[in-house]
Amino acid sequence: MVYSLVNGQSGDQLSVFDRGLAYGDGLFETLRLVNGQPLLLSLHLARLQEGCQRLALQLDSSALLAEIQQVCQVSTCQDQVLKIIISRGAGGRGYKPTAGLAANRILMLLPFVEDVEAISHGIQLYNCQTLLARQPLLAGLKHLNRLEQVLAAAELPQNCTEGLMRDSSGHVIEGTRSNLVLVLDDQRVTPDLSQCGINGVLRQWLCSVAGVSCRTVTLPMLLAATEVFMCNSVFGIYAVTALLDSQRCLATFTPGVHTRACQSGFAALLQATGKTDGAAVPADVRVP
Amino acid sequence: MVYSLVNGQSGDQLSVFDRGLAYGDGLFETLRLVNGQPLLLSLHLARLQEGCQRLALQLDSSALLAEIQQVCQVSTCQDQVLKIIISRGAGGRGYKPTAGLAANRILMLLPFVEDVEAISHGIQLYNCQTLLARQPLLAGLKHLNRLEQVLAAAELPQNCTEGLMRDSSGHVIEGTRSNLVLVLDDQRVTPDLSQCGINGVLRQWLCSVAGVSCRTVTLPMLLAATEVFMCNSVFGIYAVTALLDSQRCLATFTPGVHTRACQSGFAALLQATGKTDGAAVPADVRVP
Repeated sequence: MVYSLVNGQSGDQLSVFDRGLAYGDGLFETLRLVNGQPLLLSLHLARLQEGCQRLALQLDSSALLAEIQQVCQVSTCQDQVLKIIISRGAGGRGYKPTAGLAANRILMLLPFVEDVEAISHGIQLYNCQTLLARQPLLAGLKHLNRLEQVLAAAELPQNCTEGLMRDSSGHVIEGTRSNLVLVLDDQRVTPDLSQCGINGVLRQWLCSVAGVSCRTVTLPMLLAATEVFMCNSVFGIYAVTALLDSQRCLATFTPGVHTRACQSGFAALLQATGKTDGAAVPADVRVP
Repeated sequence: MVYSLVNGQSGDQLSVFDRGLAYGDGLFETLRLVNGQPLLLSLHLARLQEGCQRLALQLDSSALLAEIQQVCQVSTCQDQVLKIIISRGAGGRGYKPTAGLAANRILMLLPFVEDVEAISHGIQLYNCQTLLARQPLLAGLKHLNRLEQVLAAAELPQNCTEGLMRDSSGHVIEGTRSNLVLVLDDQRVTPDLSQCGINGVLRQWLCSVAGVSCRTVTLPMLLAATEVFMCNSVFGIYAVTALLDSQRCLATFTPGVHTRACQSGFAALLQATGKTDGAAVPADVRVP
């Protein structure tokens, strides 16, 4: 049985009048719990806070913090996943939100399943036909409007663990459930997300401690990269060994020093998190 | 108390693991019930069917039909609103949908509130700053990813009943909760929805019985229109008397023969629906 809380009460049901269901009117976060400690909690909370500001959601942050602690206390010493959904709440006739509606907080404790093969040997990336629409008002946020990711994920063939998503201008943006880092001229680069894409927490961490910089990335740039990896704060870092489409292999990549350095940094982060109270980002982990 | 059904059972709760909540992974329809008969039911069902095909949702259509009848039977002789939400269901880890998941059916019977002032005297339209992203894979569908409409509706000032939405190319597309019809050179025109927007049921009906044709519409074209109205299968047709932005009035319009003809057609449709079994589109109502 999965453990879940709705506004602090144990339960797994929500009103069918909730605006999260009606319009995807809300946000979510997915955190890895390491030895009962949430990984990169402060970055997850900061993104949630930014999302609440941009969408004008009224979140009771101190209640959420208490609920996160409550879930962490029932979590096991094995790694688990904490999913948090924040919806605007039930109410308001039509799209226009009722002012001051208190957001609903839903916390779910889920199993974490490590993909050992992907971590050790890397993955093949599928070049999805589903393109992301460019919507700067929602770019960066982990909001509940995710039909594009559902369509893209449905495209993935058996031999590909992740899908590459481009936007309608042809720019390379991200994976269906992770961010992309590539190495160009010995520099670590991640695509600009000002028009679309989710500003992942592990991406943010790598930008701050591993010298990853942000710029516009095209498909030819990706094909010319010397190393490519996907990052996500739950699974960590998967080296990309090949980019495929439905017809053929577009490129192959060999994981090298940059991928290994970032993977070691993530391993150190996991270890540091398991020993701390998880509230702060461990400041002493840096990636050379 | 509002009457609602979840998969045929009386109730108003849904699992927090439902993909409708998690990702907006589903569709909805909002129907007007006239004397207990659903208006333009066959067009609503056809759009739902098209959405299920494009998103690969497994909907039990005969169960849905039976549930619609069940709700209609408890509805009053006063007009009401039937809202139907179809979500992909609960399940599937991550974005990738589990194959063959049975979609959840949620039906809600809601009060219908006529805006008498808007019907009789027309409305002012607000030119929203929120632009629609262009996503042809989702264009036309009434899916559950509606954050753009939520943001646009939140912009509306008190004196405007509806908001005008343009897309990121500057094309005029629709209202936040209705479609747009304008009269150009004595021709009834509605914006092309191949890139974004919802293909409204009343818009479809007007295209088939009132000679409304579809084309790309720009803001200068709208400003030059001789008549403008908004249509929606629940509220009907609101004449637009002015287009405003936060600074000033951009244009005024005078409802004329085209608006009145379409409003009379809708009134005839309401009357014909109240007398039939609602299953078919009354074929004898045409708009000169």
